[in-house]
Amino acid sequence: MTQYDAPNRDLTFVLHEVLKVGESDIPGYGDLDPALTGAVLEEAGKIARDILAPLNATGDREGCTLENGAVRTPDGFKAAFAAVKEGGWPALDCDPAYGGQGMPYVLATAVGEIFVASNMAFNMYQGLTHGAYSAIHVHGSDDQKATYLPKLVSCDWTGTMNLTEPHCGTDLGQIRTKAEPQADGSYRITGTKIFISAGDHDLAENIIHLVLAKAPGGGEGTKGISLFIVPKFLVKSDGSLGARNGVSVGKVEEKMGIHGNATCVLNYDGATGYLLGELHKGMRAMFTMMNEARIGVGVQGYAVAVAAYQNAVAYANERLQGRAVTGPANPKGPADPLIVHPDIRRALMDQKSFIEGARALTLWGASLIDASHRKGDAAADGLISLLTPVIKGFQTDKGFDSTVQAQQIFGGHGYIEDTGMSQFVRDARITMIYEGANGVQALDLVGRKLAQDGGKPIMAFFEMVKTFIKENEGDERLKADFLEPLKLGSKDLQAAAMFFMERGMKDPNAALAGSYDFMHLFGHVALGLMWGRMAKAALAALDAGADDPAFYRTKLATGRYYMARQLPATGMHLARIRSGAEPVMALSAGAF
Amino acid sequence: MTQYDAPNRDLTFVLHEVLKVGESDIPGYGDLDPALTGAVLEEAGKIARDILAPLNATGDREGCTLENGAVRTPDGFKAAFAAVKEGGWPALDCDPAYGGQGMPYVLATAVGEIFVASNMAFNMYQGLTHGAYSAIHVHGSDDQKATYLPKLVSCDWTGTMNLTEPHCGTDLGQIRTKAEPQADGSYRITGTKIFISAGDHDLAENIIHLVLAKAPGGGEGTKGISLFIVPKFLVKSDGSLGARNGVSVGKVEEKMGIHGNATCVLNYDGATGYLLGELHKGMRAMFTMMNEARIGVGVQGYAVAVAAYQNAVAYANERLQGRAVTGPANPKGPADPLIVHPDIRRALMDQKSFIEGARALTLWGASLIDASHRKGDAAADGLISLLTPVIKGFQTDKGFDSTVQAQQIFGGHGYIEDTGMSQFVRDARITMIYEGANGVQALDLVGRKLAQDGGKPIMAFFEMVKTFIKENEGDERLKADFLEPLKLGSKDLQAAAMFFMERGMKDPNAALAGSYDFMHLFGHVALGLMWGRMAKAALAALDAGADDPAFYRTKLATGRYYMARQLPATGMHLARIRSGAEPVMALSAGAF
Repeated sequence: MTQYDAPNRDLTFVLHEVLKVGESDIPGYGDLDPALTGAVLEEAGKIARDILAPLNATGDREGCTLENGAVRTPDGFKAAFAAVKEGGWPALDCDPAYGGQGMPYVLATAVGEIFVASNMAFNMYQGLTHGAYSAIHVHGSDDQKATYLPKLVSCDWTGTMNLTEPHCGTDLGQIRTKAEPQADGSYRITGTKIFISAGDHDLAENIIHLVLAKAPGGGEGTKGISLFIVPKFLVKSDGSLGARNGVSVGKVEEKMGIHGNATCVLNYDGATGYLLGELHKGMRAMFTMMNEARIGVGVQGYAVAVAAYQNAVAYANERLQGRAVTGPANPKGPADPLIVHPDIRRALMDQKSFIEGARALTLWGASLIDASHRKGDAAADGLISLLTPVIKGFQTDKGFDSTVQAQQIFGGHGYIEDTGMSQFVRDARITMIYEGANGVQALDLVGRKLAQDGGKPIMAFFEMVKTFIKENEGDERLKADFLEPLKLGSKDLQAAAMFFMERGMKDPNAALAGSYDFMHLFGHVALGLMWGRMAKAALAALDAGADDPAFYRTKLATGRYYMARQLPATGMHLARIRSGAEPVMALSAGAF
Repeated sequence: MTQYDAPNRDLTFVLHEVLKVGESDIPGYGDLDPALTGAVLEEAGKIARDILAPLNATGDREGCTLENGAVRTPDGFKAAFAAVKEGGWPALDCDPAYGGQGMPYVLATAVGEIFVASNMAFNMYQGLTHGAYSAIHVHGSDDQKATYLPKLVSCDWTGTMNLTEPHCGTDLGQIRTKAEPQADGSYRITGTKIFISAGDHDLAENIIHLVLAKAPGGGEGTKGISLFIVPKFLVKSDGSLGARNGVSVGKVEEKMGIHGNATCVLNYDGATGYLLGELHKGMRAMFTMMNEARIGVGVQGYAVAVAAYQNAVAYANERLQGRAVTGPANPKGPADPLIVHPDIRRALMDQKSFIEGARALTLWGASLIDASHRKGDAAADGLISLLTPVIKGFQTDKGFDSTVQAQQIFGGHGYIEDTGMSQFVRDARITMIYEGANGVQALDLVGRKLAQDGGKPIMAFFEMVKTFIKENEGDERLKADFLEPLKLGSKDLQAAAMFFMERGMKDPNAALAGSYDFMHLFGHVALGLMWGRMAKAALAALDAGADDPAFYRTKLATGRYYMARQLPATGMHLARIRSGAEPVMALSAGAF
């Protein structure tokens, strides 16, 4: 049995001491005082600890089953979903015009970490619903908004994203699902979609599928794609539910993990669909969901690692095995706890320093989204667009590694399903794959985001690092431990970007061969910047005579670990990038 | 459904062109001509492809079940085990005095790779048996040898290793299983052992458990431990089976992977046991098994990665998704195969270059064991003792990463159990844990093996690298691509060893905090040396006008990839090591 306690002190540190949300001029941030955020996080933590975490193993063990065409979720999921709805959690950052609470996205993201960490598979039901809400909120007609948004905000209805088909995932230009226009303005949708998370279940009255399909006249490839709203049950004009629509569950997939979430094959057989947004511009509308989902997956990447880490720490403190090399730490016991051993600490510090850095990066990213949405800050929008593939790709890769390290601390016991550590690893594995496999994130970063807007966002990022270093160089406590490693890492990142610019023009393969390394290099520098900011905030608190100096000293030590032992990866990534396309592309396809 | 083809061309390349086994003066190596090894590997490959690989998914799906106190293996395992026995495979490198074929261990290791790759869980039944055979062969009395060895050589009986107890794994000094001496010279064994691979099953008439237990008078800790032979069925003086012994299966564990192998809790309740080797010197006897098992796990580390890689290559060639950035490669099709994309190639080259390097290192290691056993070569013995934790720890970490990368190429399909890629990952995960978790391997390497014999083995390794570089510097085809990166890597490794020597005396934590990085640093340099040797052999073949130049050119390109894109990790590991103990040990146990 695993345990989970929401890390609210760490979350409020990032919100209030690093990002200083209460002092921000982003509309709505003024309300975010420590009393409010503290109360929200505490309530979320209670639900996570008391309701969601205890169901995590149940979900894994029972999985979802297809019975007479309908999906049954694991025991206890219904009651838990009702409790989450009852608490108004799905509505947290939704538009008050549709029943939402209108809180900033940054707070919803902090709550999201807590819910995901306690039960990732369960939380996907509301996570996907939020994505559908956003797509309809941005692209829907007034009628569509009035019909669907209140029900999605309350999670009386849930949502899904339908992109993938058996023969194509990333390459959506190949989709075959058809949309035939009807006289009444609706469309008849026919085709097969696969890997539909929360595709069917027994938690909600209705499910609103957002489906990519090709309507006539749009041309080849992604240009011909439109997005459609396809409800499981048709909605009558009075808002009540009508007939079952022509969509059925073909299969529930057997997966490596996230068993508590139903991954469905959905068959659309002349189902009634309603165009969402403009005809033939479905990719744009879908990207509203995708970008949000990518940040959400970035949260999953580190949140599951948080839960795994907490259990690894508990085990390392309890399990008596061997003696400290410097002399017994527990002389009266039969052995010392695992945590005395340097290599166990290395593994725990790797996890801790990554998790806390990723949390800061993610919440900063969420505040950039708020700045973009709530005050139309174009620079913030460009920056989060650049950072999204990093948050998704880097954090899920490292998050998976982190859960594997946590499992490793349990030795053989970690491999046994009983301890729950295997589930964390199996669940975390999907985050590297869905919402655009991490290779696709790297391609997006190097092939699209670097050059975006004439390179403004990446230049702004470099400028931000430079300014931070310059402004704080006078503080000797930051200089050697934080600023110098950050400067070196940032130099490596700039050198890599320069390499792509010089080589990529002539040989695009040279840039793409290094894209994955660039994503990791960027991730390390971004976390280095976050650690610099966190260290600065911790020193400020200590200087101000904070009540809990131990908390801040721990923060500083954790940051020093990241800078000393994780940032040196940047040199390796740069060397790999600089080796160019030749080593990668040397073989013919048949020679592998 | 996965596929597997034994990579016999690659295996014979290492055996005959790199290690040149036929020309070696190790007794028995003279018989290893290409005709013999080719025939053996071809037969092994047939069994792997036709019998073992098709059962791999069955084993995972069905697992082992405990029914009325006896373990039932998955459907088809009995027939497959009979076929393996029928072919005499378990006897391959065993002593002819007991029915073995007396072939060198290096050939058995090559065959082992094939069997493990095709069905890791299944192959453990004979793998553990071989360990028991070796322990009895080295430490048993003549009577014990006569009683047990012929049956273990034929696999009519199988073997197990019993070390772990619920409260202790690595720290064997804590074991509580008791051995009470009886008047007839036997012992009564009482206690509980857990995580016993192949602990019970229906594949053999009898199971010979080798059990660590404490007999009176041995003192505290590991000093009091002895090793006992505890047969499942007692063996009568005529060799026939007698009464059931007092050992029973408490449980079959639910694990993350290797479901086809029964991991048992075994309860010893006054079971009859026979002392193996000297009283109170059980650890030494057990290490005969352990060292062999560690090499065996090192084989598993890369062998499962081979199977995963082969399937990833097939998928990358079949799956049509996107277009090559340099223009369509499959203009008549709806899209290009995945393998055109640089990042897919990066992932495949990472796997391929690791796998082939690990294969060479492992077979070289096996030849060192042969040199030690067959001609008493003390230097070879010292070297393999040093390399064992590297082969076990580095290769299983990288092997796991490699299977994860293979799974990643399948995108969402890799996460669905149907494709079999999840099984490879789940199976591979245990290799990082059992036979000494990889942190323990790193501790063994830095805390014991580095200083072993006054540092002779590590100095011999450095000398070997230096000599190789010096002898081949005149060849421009090797110099920049192979020798220079190897020199840099080796310099990093020496600097790390020097750091440990200087710091470790005063502060053992400084060495241990860097032990894991040192293991990886060493692994990279060892694989770099192997790639240097393979490149040299490939060039020699090309110079000699070999029939299949494409094979050798592929080998060179794969090696160049390893040197350019994997070896740069050494600098990162050195930087981490040099940061010392402080970042790792800074926090109090309660601050995590």
